[in-house]
Amino acid sequence: MQNIRSPCCGPDFKHLIHSGLANIPGSKTAILPIMSSTSDITDLLLNAKQASRYINQLANSQRIALTNSLATAIEQHIPKILAANATDLARMDPANPMYDRLLLNESRLLAIAAATREVATLPDPVGKLQLSITKPNGLRISKITVPLGVVGAIYEARPNVTIDIVALCLRSGNAVVLKGGSDAAATNACTVAIMQQVLENAGLPKAAITLLPNERGVVQPFLNATKYIDVIVPRGSQGLINFVRSHASVPVIETGAGVCHTYVHAQANLAKALPIVVNAKTQRPSVCNALDTILVDETVAGIFLPQLKEPFAQFGVGIYADEKSYAFLQAAAYPNLHHTQPEDFGREFLSQNCSVKVVRDLDEALDHIAEYSSKHSEAIITEDAAVAERFLQEVDAAAVYHNASTRFTDGGEFGLGAELGISTQKLHARGPFALEKLVCEKWIVRGSGQVR
Amino acid sequence: MQNIRSPCCGPDFKHLIHSGLANIPGSKTAILPIMSSTSDITDLLLNAKQASRYINQLANSQRIALTNSLATAIEQHIPKILAANATDLARMDPANPMYDRLLLNESRLLAIAAATREVATLPDPVGKLQLSITKPNGLRISKITVPLGVVGAIYEARPNVTIDIVALCLRSGNAVVLKGGSDAAATNACTVAIMQQVLENAGLPKAAITLLPNERGVVQPFLNATKYIDVIVPRGSQGLINFVRSHASVPVIETGAGVCHTYVHAQANLAKALPIVVNAKTQRPSVCNALDTILVDETVAGIFLPQLKEPFAQFGVGIYADEKSYAFLQAAAYPNLHHTQPEDFGREFLSQNCSVKVVRDLDEALDHIAEYSSKHSEAIITEDAAVAERFLQEVDAAAVYHNASTRFTDGGEFGLGAELGISTQKLHARGPFALEKLVCEKWIVRGSGQVR
Repeated sequence: MQNIRSPCCGPDFKHLIHSGLANIPGSKTAILPIMSSTSDITDLLLNAKQASRYINQLANSQRIALTNSLATAIEQHIPKILAANATDLARMDPANPMYDRLLLNESRLLAIAAATREVATLPDPVGKLQLSITKPNGLRISKITVPLGVVGAIYEARPNVTIDIVALCLRSGNAVVLKGGSDAAATNACTVAIMQQVLENAGLPKAAITLLPNERGVVQPFLNATKYIDVIVPRGSQGLINFVRSHASVPVIETGAGVCHTYVHAQANLAKALPIVVNAKTQRPSVCNALDTILVDETVAGIFLPQLKEPFAQFGVGIYADEKSYAFLQAAAYPNLHHTQPEDFGREFLSQNCSVKVVRDLDEALDHIAEYSSKHSEAIITEDAAVAERFLQEVDAAAVYHNASTRFTDGGEFGLGAELGISTQKLHARGPFALEKLVCEKWIVRGSGQVR
Repeated sequence: MQNIRSPCCGPDFKHLIHSGLANIPGSKTAILPIMSSTSDITDLLLNAKQASRYINQLANSQRIALTNSLATAIEQHIPKILAANATDLARMDPANPMYDRLLLNESRLLAIAAATREVATLPDPVGKLQLSITKPNGLRISKITVPLGVVGAIYEARPNVTIDIVALCLRSGNAVVLKGGSDAAATNACTVAIMQQVLENAGLPKAAITLLPNERGVVQPFLNATKYIDVIVPRGSQGLINFVRSHASVPVIETGAGVCHTYVHAQANLAKALPIVVNAKTQRPSVCNALDTILVDETVAGIFLPQLKEPFAQFGVGIYADEKSYAFLQAAAYPNLHHTQPEDFGREFLSQNCSVKVVRDLDEALDHIAEYSSKHSEAIITEDAAVAERFLQEVDAAAVYHNASTRFTDGGEFGLGAELGISTQKLHARGPFALEKLVCEKWIVRGSGQVR
């Protein structure tokens, strides 16, 4: 590793990395970063790509130190971040439901910094030996995990996401290009500058964290930058995800909407079913693993549905009921009751509302889920083990549950740590898209002159 | 599994699968398949999706038997397939370089059938336990591999690809939707009908193998069918791949072009370097892992390049040389010599031609590869172990080689069996995209009433 290379652009960081001088944090051997003096998107992306060649080669200890330094920097600059956040907040009506998502305060920032330190403690996803064979001709072939390269993220006005994604990317040896929501522009510019300073202090190119300018025109070139971006993660509303899916030629990991069903089977223990359904719906309705539709077997609907009245009443849960369930709920004088419209099935409510449908049997439940599920999290409540196994096997979703709340679909709950989102597509990562999946594979073949 | 479900469309195959009556091959309990009587693309895709619900649930033994039955059916219908192939061939000029790719004969069909039987012997990729944890609250969480669902394939006029892809998909429990090249329309229609008959004989819905009509208008709806298709694999030219990447909202696995470099380092053993370079370029130049560009260190260029003359002459290799290498090759009276044009770097030749560039050192080689590589297969020839390790670590490609020919990048050579192609993107599968990767993950959570 003693070969010192002349970098393809900007000053030479490589020798700092390879000579171990880039001690992180607090190295004072600061070197000027690659400057993004032009807003030309291609230059920004090229700089990020070139910076990734350094970040991708960092050792685990360096990546851990770098991640902890991010947390320290956030903690040290709380007043500055809150001031920037205040300018964003001043441009938004406090009655806007987005206001709370945009809002930072000291305790939120400390929690974000703590979460960043958590990321530092996660097992290294890089360099895992996945396969190793020696061929009869003497070729030694191995497959190991390596950083993806440059991760792109496009998301809405949640300033915590900026820091979360940077921490996960740097921890896994990836450069990151961010396109955040314009409502959070000042906050993002502030936190990114603080995190770039951490890179500079470590003698690393600050383009490894690139925030795209707050201009609509950058989005399409970003989504098509197959030469510079290895994967794009959209994080936010279904509308954003659909836009990215339709417009990106860079590979996308969809961290998508959850249209989640819980099926109360004929053999359900209703004493289990009730708290599970209530938890899945009400504990945090704004998140993707919350319940959207209750399917209830016709043999138990008349007993079960009226039991929802009291626990749901505490949260003011509105029910959009199909014809049969409407009758049962109306008979029980359920207070917040509506007839379903066709769009109420397959709808992600993200609120204290849900739809209900009475089904004939498991088959009708499976067909309904196959038709309307977003393939996120699906649950069955039953004491019949064979029925449960058939549900677990046949339902096509990232996470399938027997006798538990769908709210558990979460990187932390599944033992993976912080997540970029819950993937509802099937390639590469399914379910919690966490640190372990911010890598790809590389085949390494060592020979002694072999030809084919 | 005794629950007999009413299928969401068409006759009920499920009970045959679950009762074990769908013995494959040769079951005479043939049931009419879901008919695709309309050319409406949505109906075809919906049928394929619904058929996938049956195929996805097949046991390993059933999938093995099904795959072997495909091979038997191909062998039994050779005259019929050759007749169909003759009608395709009759529409093509025999001087067309595509003619040989389109051509089938008995020995080729027997080889395809044998390859199909090979696929049957590969380890089952489905149902692999990848993770299993029990949480303090008693939740039992596991992650297993499951079929992707419906695999889409779009490719050119190579009729063998039709059978290869069907075999890999059915072996791994996936339904498959094919859009083949129009020049092979009659051959594809014939082989697909034969393979659908295998499904029918087994009491399975023939829509699990769906051949899209030979109409341009089907392509865009196919590429956007996120509701029905779980992944699309384009297989063929870079133009096709770029088109699919730019127009698909379904996730794509790119099995792409290979712009492959071999770098002859200053410390190379030239007695190894020469046969490796000659093999990588000449053994099968039409494939993606063949050499496209030789990078040669300036300290050895004057010795090494003239040595290429004799072995390359046997194959009439044309060299597109940069200024420095041109001088060395001209001095050696290399017969088929041209000056490089800018497009000759980063060019996949797919023929007995290559480009050559003299480089100053490892760093210049790494920069050149970073700029021009398609991230497929890259090699270094050197006796300096530290230089080799730096190359292996820093080059961003699916496969990186030390002292061996890039021609080894192949599913068979890497121990994975037949491949759908070599993936040059980073998500899900990188390098040989083979049976083992025709699956995704599913989280299964078993509880006893847990809530969050």
